[in-house]
Amino acid sequence: MPYAGLVARWQPNASQRLVLAALDLFAEQGYESTTVIEIAERAGLTKSTFFRHFPDKREVLFGGERMARLLAEGIAAAPATATPLQAIGHALDAVGRQAFTPGLRHFSARRRAVIAANPELQEREALKALGLIAAMTGSLTQRGVPELTGRVAAELGALAMKIAYERWSDATDGAEFGEIAGRTLSELQAALSATS
Amino acid sequence: MPYAGLVARWQPNASQRLVLAALDLFAEQGYESTTVIEIAERAGLTKSTFFRHFPDKREVLFGGERMARLLAEGIAAAPATATPLQAIGHALDAVGRQAFTPGLRHFSARRRAVIAANPELQEREALKALGLIAAMTGSLTQRGVPELTGRVAAELGALAMKIAYERWSDATDGAEFGEIAGRTLSELQAALSATS
Repeated sequence: MPYAGLVARWQPNASQRLVLAALDLFAEQGYESTTVIEIAERAGLTKSTFFRHFPDKREVLFGGERMARLLAEGIAAAPATATPLQAIGHALDAVGRQAFTPGLRHFSARRRAVIAANPELQEREALKALGLIAAMTGSLTQRGVPELTGRVAAELGALAMKIAYERWSDATDGAEFGEIAGRTLSELQAALSATS
Repeated sequence: MPYAGLVARWQPNASQRLVLAALDLFAEQGYESTTVIEIAERAGLTKSTFFRHFPDKREVLFGGERMARLLAEGIAAAPATATPLQAIGHALDAVGRQAFTPGLRHFSARRRAVIAANPELQEREALKALGLIAAMTGSLTQRGVPELTGRVAAELGALAMKIAYERWSDATDGAEFGEIAGRTLSELQAALSATS
């Protein structure tokens, strides 16, 4: 098992073993020609265990609803005085501490390469982004932010997160996700003023 | 053929007949249980004709690259003095004149309902939106707009287009798409100032 080291370092559980097995197989033989059974076997698990964790083959690289929950909770936990974009910055910081941790950087770079090679995975990623935007919009409106303002802020937050994820997984200087995301949000705000 | 009237009104061609047949079948019996062969038969065409027009069943409701081209051309044709968001407003106006014409409003409302009921179609729609953003960003940077500014403007343009499309296909007062899109863009700009 070439990924045994990673599994050990990540405190293995079935879900993570399936993710790593899938990533290896997609990279080795392509996404299209990999079956759920092969992923389960490579992870030393059964097909039914796979389907207890993921509804289909695509979802294995997308981690269900966890990211949407982290963002919504991060926005809810921001200081009451925070502007919508500051609350989003707070949430992206939490994502860096709880999800995009330094040990995952190499995994994320490999994951991006597999997604970039597969239109079906790009579709799932695009749909996931809509879910993140909906979660952020919902959490902002619960703070009393008007609907349309929340929606615009959430779109900017999703764009910042996407660019920051690319920068973070490409980075070799050990910069942390939250820090990169904060810089990216500031850059987007500066760019905004030039749009109109 | 229940849609014969519509077909006639729209100057029928194979592509449009396939789109209307697909929409009818998706609404009647569901997207999942409709086959490409059934769509072709309902349109009075063959399966191979279907695949000359669309790569797969999903694509039949998304019109290929036409919308991306309209947006890119609309931005390119905007006055040299236009700001990025003004250029996008110009492009959305062109979309209203050349694609989202008043005769298509009812079709668009039905199309939205079918997409809302099918996760696979939502995925394709989300991916299509990324294509529109890329096309707008590319056309803006060709006007000399910096990359990040272009990307932010394109995201806002895509959001305005999406909200305007919902409003337009829901509207019963005959308001035109370009006009609704212009108002939506202005609202988004106002909302933006409240995000930071």
